[in-house]
Amino acid sequence: MGSPAGQGAVTAAVLIIGDEILSGRTQDTNLRDIALYLGVHGVDLMEARTVSDVHEDIIAALDALRTRYDYVITTGGIGPTHDDITADAVAAAFGVELYEHPDIIAMMSARWGAEPNAARRRMARVPVGGDLVKNPVQGPPGFTIGNVFVLAGVPQIMRGMLEDVGHRLKGGAVVLSRTVRVEGSGEGVIAAPLEAVAKAHPGMSLGSYPFYGEGGYGSNLVLRGRDAVELEATVAELIAALEAAGVAKVAELAIPA
Amino acid sequence: MGSPAGQGAVTAAVLIIGDEILSGRTQDTNLRDIALYLGVHGVDLMEARTVSDVHEDIIAALDALRTRYDYVITTGGIGPTHDDITADAVAAAFGVELYEHPDIIAMMSARWGAEPNAARRRMARVPVGGDLVKNPVQGPPGFTIGNVFVLAGVPQIMRGMLEDVGHRLKGGAVVLSRTVRVEGSGEGVIAAPLEAVAKAHPGMSLGSYPFYGEGGYGSNLVLRGRDAVELEATVAELIAALEAAGVAKVAELAIPA
Repeated sequence: MGSPAGQGAVTAAVLIIGDEILSGRTQDTNLRDIALYLGVHGVDLMEARTVSDVHEDIIAALDALRTRYDYVITTGGIGPTHDDITADAVAAAFGVELYEHPDIIAMMSARWGAEPNAARRRMARVPVGGDLVKNPVQGPPGFTIGNVFVLAGVPQIMRGMLEDVGHRLKGGAVVLSRTVRVEGSGEGVIAAPLEAVAKAHPGMSLGSYPFYGEGGYGSNLVLRGRDAVELEATVAELIAALEAAGVAKVAELAIPA
Repeated sequence: MGSPAGQGAVTAAVLIIGDEILSGRTQDTNLRDIALYLGVHGVDLMEARTVSDVHEDIIAALDALRTRYDYVITTGGIGPTHDDITADAVAAAFGVELYEHPDIIAMMSARWGAEPNAARRRMARVPVGGDLVKNPVQGPPGFTIGNVFVLAGVPQIMRGMLEDVGHRLKGGAVVLSRTVRVEGSGEGVIAAPLEAVAKAHPGMSLGSYPFYGEGGYGSNLVLRGRDAVELEATVAELIAALEAAGVAKVAELAIPA
């Protein structure tokens, strides 16, 4: 069962910018961090795209996503090197110019004790009409324009910037989730009871996320919804249905801290 | 500097299918594994998309990617549960029907000692005109149709299936890569010499992949190209240029095994 955005749901997409991801050099972790963050804020992450550091490709992806979803969060390509062209592409997508933001220049001058050099000045460029996104870690801030948030690619810095994003999102409700873990039984056994319970609760999202470990196949069955009472009932029904189908090792997972 | 596909380059895209990635429940690692695998085969990975288990969204993404790039590799959504709809979407995109592949049914019957149940039979469905992709790990095979390869989402199984993909790709040359590591200097210092060397070698792809660790900022500078002699020369020029710009800790990284 998918988790298409419900009626009135707030939606978002992530745009990951950088050759290092597409070359396999770097393992992206930002998508997952953003997904979890948006989940807590009740925003449905609907799609993600990863593109190269190519001007036209960034613009095309950004335009496709920002017109379709309520918000777009981009990561990467806002450093000082010649391959950092995210700001240029975002400005071009919105049809505005970039300018050196005086607050960022002042921040850099204070930090380095001198006027920033040309490479660092690249990081002070913000589209006209944009606002800054605070960077509590180190280095220059990100920015936001329209429904787009432009964050750093370095994970620690991205996570820091994200904290200045949530309060600007129009709120959906918080999505609640519970996980039922099955061990030693594959999806071939799980599928029928899972489907029956999913059909009985169309307001819930039920997903099966299989793994293959030392004890053979298993699966984490994740139940998501916005109604705590229905969620509770659905968990109980699912465990009962699995046991009735002959699944021996089934239990609710403790909620991670 | 981007790594747009060169003249005559063979290109590919990855389509990751599954709510578990977009909910943040699961950390995707398949994209990186596929990227590294394609790199060795000289195929340029140009774009990746992640979509939910929603029929229309899978078809739209698949059609956008398969018309633009030489190959598309999908991961996820080929299990037996009701949310596994990748085969249906791929068949719909190609305008063909699904049928139960007799080899897969025979494989399942041999394994389970009985005719497979309805849930497992879902995994035997292959689009008319498709071929199987071997699964050397466990469970049913993937399949390929047209320029699309449909692989499992479970990473161990996905990697196993990938081994039956490479020999079907029309070959580009193998891409060579070398990495120069800078520690204790940020991109503000690195940017100018990196850009100068990149401009002098338009046939190379030079990327800066910064990190932030105990010793402060640093960066892995990755050089990629298909000409071993030019690559060797570019590495030497880059190290010299960085040292001339005042970077103290710079050295070529040993090539990973």
